[in-house]
Amino acid sequence: MSPSSRGRPRGSDTRQLLDLARELFTEQGFRGTTMDAVAARAHVSKQSLYRDYPSKDELYSAVVRDWVERGSDGMKPHAEALAATDDAHAGLLGIARIMQAGILSPPVLQMRTLIAAEASRFPEIAADYVERSWTRNIQMLAKALRVMADRGLLQLDNPELAAEQLTWLVIAAPLNRLTLQAGAAPYSADELAELADQGVATFISRFGPAGSARVGKGS
Amino acid sequence: MSPSSRGRPRGSDTRQLLDLARELFTEQGFRGTTMDAVAARAHVSKQSLYRDYPSKDELYSAVVRDWVERGSDGMKPHAEALAATDDAHAGLLGIARIMQAGILSPPVLQMRTLIAAEASRFPEIAADYVERSWTRNIQMLAKALRVMADRGLLQLDNPELAAEQLTWLVIAAPLNRLTLQAGAAPYSADELAELADQGVATFISRFGPAGSARVGKGS
Repeated sequence: MSPSSRGRPRGSDTRQLLDLARELFTEQGFRGTTMDAVAARAHVSKQSLYRDYPSKDELYSAVVRDWVERGSDGMKPHAEALAATDDAHAGLLGIARIMQAGILSPPVLQMRTLIAAEASRFPEIAADYVERSWTRNIQMLAKALRVMADRGLLQLDNPELAAEQLTWLVIAAPLNRLTLQAGAAPYSADELAELADQGVATFISRFGPAGSARVGKGS
Repeated sequence: MSPSSRGRPRGSDTRQLLDLARELFTEQGFRGTTMDAVAARAHVSKQSLYRDYPSKDELYSAVVRDWVERGSDGMKPHAEALAATDDAHAGLLGIARIMQAGILSPPVLQMRTLIAAEASRFPEIAADYVERSWTRNIQMLAKALRVMADRGLLQLDNPELAAEQLTWLVIAAPLNRLTLQAGAAPYSADELAELADQGVATFISRFGPAGSARVGKGS
């Protein structure tokens, strides 16, 4: 144990190791990452690494599981705030910006690329990631939209559909670009704001309360 | 030259080799694919393979370039048919189904995953793919939407924005799922049809001619 880590809880060392392993996996890919390189970067012995993770497969699995666990529930306070808002337009814009900031951040995009590249080799890990990140967050958003509808702020019968449409209207274009072109210039703050504005305008055209549908029409 | 390929034009052999190399790259990844394996699968000598493609990098580049070239202009007749339609709703549904069938097909998804995984190593190849596949097809769709607006079938000032929104409304959810979970069950025909219906309904709420905005409202 290094002096700087003495006295820290064991969980902290584990997390640090998984973070370093995650960096290597996202930089070098699964195949390009060796247990030797992970041990060297984490300043632990190979023996110690293999004691905790008997194979590279198990290390990869632990890295993704840790990542998903840390990210889960990140959406919850924002979804609750949306459900409680009195201003549907402002609330939807707010959650759109939150989704953009979270999903389009470089570490999230890198993990996404890694998981996609290794989905054939590790189908259960990919399925767990989809279930506990995407599906769960969209369900949380759907729940908030349903509350808004109950409160008369939206008109919708299928909140899951509405949540999917809102999500993709505000993040799909940059997500696609940045997924396919790691290292491409990210969308500017202005571009993201415009995307959120336009996505929310379209969403409200369909799901806003009666009388709001033509707002922004054709703009 | 094998007996079966004797007399065929040179382009056909090249294409066949690039197809076999593409299969290997998408199955094994860039790192997991060797020039030896490509030569073996294509039944050519290593010398002959290296003569045409002096390195694995150059082979990869040729595979992606060939793929993009074959796919480009695939959207064109459909965009032209859309521009000429008299029934906006049916035309939009039709192009939605075309986009789903094209973009969500297994070979397209596999190439997408490969290009994303190798984007850091080959940024120009990824950029060229994005430019000549996505950007170009969305511009073609935008052009068709502009013609429809000129003909009074839609109301929009920014056809590129409208084309992006239509695209993502009808393909983003399955594209995301299948990108992250290669080998997951594809969306059923019914699910895709419903996604297209709902995406087009939302699109028309925003961009349909006056009077159509409440069609499907809240459903």
